[in-house]
Amino acid sequence: MKKKIILASGSPRRRELLTQIGIAYEVVPSDAEETVTETDPARVVESLSFRKAMDVAEKQAEDCVVIGADTVVALDQQILGKPADETQALQMLHALQGRSHCVYTGVTLLVKQQDRMEPHTFHERTTVHVAAMNDREINHYIATGEPLDKAGAYGIQGAFAAYICGIEGDYYNVVGLPLCHLVQVLKEIGFEI
Amino acid sequence: MKKKIILASGSPRRRELLTQIGIAYEVVPSDAEETVTETDPARVVESLSFRKAMDVAEKQAEDCVVIGADTVVALDQQILGKPADETQALQMLHALQGRSHCVYTGVTLLVKQQDRMEPHTFHERTTVHVAAMNDREINHYIATGEPLDKAGAYGIQGAFAAYICGIEGDYYNVVGLPLCHLVQVLKEIGFEI
Repeated sequence: MKKKIILASGSPRRRELLTQIGIAYEVVPSDAEETVTETDPARVVESLSFRKAMDVAEKQAEDCVVIGADTVVALDQQILGKPADETQALQMLHALQGRSHCVYTGVTLLVKQQDRMEPHTFHERTTVHVAAMNDREINHYIATGEPLDKAGAYGIQGAFAAYICGIEGDYYNVVGLPLCHLVQVLKEIGFEI
Repeated sequence: MKKKIILASGSPRRRELLTQIGIAYEVVPSDAEETVTETDPARVVESLSFRKAMDVAEKQAEDCVVIGADTVVALDQQILGKPADETQALQMLHALQGRSHCVYTGVTLLVKQQDRMEPHTFHERTTVHVAAMNDREINHYIATGEPLDKAGAYGIQGAFAAYICGIEGDYYNVVGLPLCHLVQVLKEIGFEI
């Protein structure tokens, strides 16, 4: 298959991940609404990834494969999105420190061929163990500015790495795209990577 | 404690990791022999990390903290070092694909205070699950040039990410430094990070 790949996400981290594994793509961020009625994290991220991919695929004239993705942090099945401000970031980091949580990324690969749309949707879950942090450490991390645009108020690939004792699952899923699973599905639908 | 931190390693990846978590350091690569008589991976990396740290600490005039580190890949307890050439890289990647192995990083923090040397040595183990790869994929990865300077012939942070289904443990331990454990020990010996 020689279709163009379109990433339906403005996230610089997702762009870097696709580039890292040598996948050529274009970026067309989706304008889809990010509100959902589901509460189960796996369903939420799958549903949002589908909506983002569909939003972008519908606007394409040519055949293509659109990648939509959505990532959330779930603490005891409660979803933490991006913090609205530093106070909310502080609350989230307080809740996450010294224990484990899960990160879910949902992905939809939408194959657009003439007028047909063929969606492949899946999610990956990674468990993340966070070290105990004191208030000084949390405030110091918030002062880096990293928390504000990230689900759960942290980025595993930045300064917060000092507080991640370990994970179970795909690291890149926590960054924002489960690369290994994504590549498997791309191969199944006929792409050579 | 306000001592200078010295990284006894020329590895650009270890440098990037310390920078990522905001630790200021100087680099003084060690010339220590990298041959050992031990065969247990945990002992090998601890022993080599100690030797590297000691080699550099002995040459310092001032008080300091030297960080020595060594990383190996172990498949069924057999150690895979850096491949000598592409043929050896091919053999290693053939052996690693489609199954799990462990990565060990040993770290020694050596506190040099006047004429006293106080070593703190530990290791971290991370289990890595590698997807099945065909010959074309292995050869394509070797052609990127990434395998040649890396233990086990792969770098988790590069194009090989497409084949890492998941891990159990510290991701940064696989890159070359277990940041979380390192920071805990730095705090225990009196450093503020």
